[in-house]
Amino acid sequence: MTTGPGAVSEFDRDIAVSREGDHFSGELKDGWRVGGGVNGGFQLSLLGNAIRAALPDHPDPVAVSAYYISPAVAGPARVDVRPLRTGGRTATVAADLRQGDDVRLSVLATYGDLAAFPSDDVRTTAEPVVLPPRDECVANTLAPEEIKEMAPFTQRFEMLFHPDEVGWAVGKPSGRGQISAWFRLADDREPDPLALLMAVDALPPVTFDLGLPGWAPTVELSAHVRAKPAPGWLRLRHRTRNVAGGFFEEDCEVWDSADRLVAQSRQLALLPR
Amino acid sequence: MTTGPGAVSEFDRDIAVSREGDHFSGELKDGWRVGGGVNGGFQLSLLGNAIRAALPDHPDPVAVSAYYISPAVAGPARVDVRPLRTGGRTATVAADLRQGDDVRLSVLATYGDLAAFPSDDVRTTAEPVVLPPRDECVANTLAPEEIKEMAPFTQRFEMLFHPDEVGWAVGKPSGRGQISAWFRLADDREPDPLALLMAVDALPPVTFDLGLPGWAPTVELSAHVRAKPAPGWLRLRHRTRNVAGGFFEEDCEVWDSADRLVAQSRQLALLPR
Repeated sequence: MTTGPGAVSEFDRDIAVSREGDHFSGELKDGWRVGGGVNGGFQLSLLGNAIRAALPDHPDPVAVSAYYISPAVAGPARVDVRPLRTGGRTATVAADLRQGDDVRLSVLATYGDLAAFPSDDVRTTAEPVVLPPRDECVANTLAPEEIKEMAPFTQRFEMLFHPDEVGWAVGKPSGRGQISAWFRLADDREPDPLALLMAVDALPPVTFDLGLPGWAPTVELSAHVRAKPAPGWLRLRHRTRNVAGGFFEEDCEVWDSADRLVAQSRQLALLPR
Repeated sequence: MTTGPGAVSEFDRDIAVSREGDHFSGELKDGWRVGGGVNGGFQLSLLGNAIRAALPDHPDPVAVSAYYISPAVAGPARVDVRPLRTGGRTATVAADLRQGDDVRLSVLATYGDLAAFPSDDVRTTAEPVVLPPRDECVANTLAPEEIKEMAPFTQRFEMLFHPDEVGWAVGKPSGRGQISAWFRLADDREPDPLALLMAVDALPPVTFDLGLPGWAPTVELSAHVRAKPAPGWLRLRHRTRNVAGGFFEEDCEVWDSADRLVAQSRQLALLPR
């Protein structure tokens, strides 16, 4: 693994896209696979990187809504970006990620320059995610080898679970519908708005904590990036409060090392069968 | 006002669309105006009605994400619906609402048949919106005449505000960032999934309760319709927990008369200047 000054992190290497005429090309690497599919948050980071390239004056995702059309597989991917409104403080685009003729992911997104937004009025009544010290949490590196092979995605970051919310790993879910963890990308790659698009879909499905293991396909995921994250560890939390009709909503909050709520997301997902 | 058996409610009359070749036509009526623009939730109901017409096997919105591109005005509108995936339990489309050459609203949406979804596993830990009896709440009909003229939208329904959360109307906002109310469409039109798309954007901006009156333009609104609402009054609640960067998130919950959480939405909006 390459680290050190000047080295490119695996995350940056893997979300890279190149412009080819009217579209962008990239590759969904096998390392981001979960079972037969590729993690939806990672797809969003790669697609989000293409949008950033298409909008030089608006480098950061502010609001992104993703609809997952068909399961992505490891291999080449193409991103098309279509501007809907540009100019001013924000720009809005439609974008699709395709493999061959199949749309994997269709997105609407508003981008802006988070550093240029006013920073003097922050009123957050949401309460930060509280986690025990990292050496008291349960590391993803402890996962069994068969999990690591089935889901190499889980090895792209350090994830240190709240010890009270990881009972599902040993068949004792809490039943509360909450999973939280410390989070840091491999290579100590610092968080940024594009990485947050992956972070909001990085934890296991919150249904694990309800005693429903198994894949929970995302129908729709909308994320708001509310500030550039400070360097260091992130804290992530998944929660659900409404399981019904064979679906559940999953809210994610991402807090940075400066105790700022930097991203909020909600997805609608299918209950595992 | 037409009422009685067989009468068409104003909501149904106003969201009506007709198919014209490859697109749908409708009209944004002046009655749904707020200041110079047309309420975003109403636009979504009209557009959502066109999607319903385009997807006869999938009549109900399940997840809808709307990006507001330019302010809509009273007058004719056109809706284009482009299928992304059809067949199976749900279908996903992209749709745009245009006036002339201008896109007002661009949407991604997943539709299904809510009545056909499994109903045996409902686990809602969210707590219902609690409101005093309706005769102890503050009715929207009490609004000054100049408000009714500026925002005829507010007269399309009965809205009975929680008396502790309506101080903004007399210059005494609570500062908590919460507004809740009883809600019922004019003509006693019963709630359904399309009406919920309007209901999630019907309350005043929650920033009123933070002492920030004024228009709060929606950047993005995503709504999940989780069940067909039971007949009768709805309870709506807006909340915000994170004001930052000149934006705020606004969560809406809609509870029906059977105490079911039938819709959840979140929007990102611009703070009033």
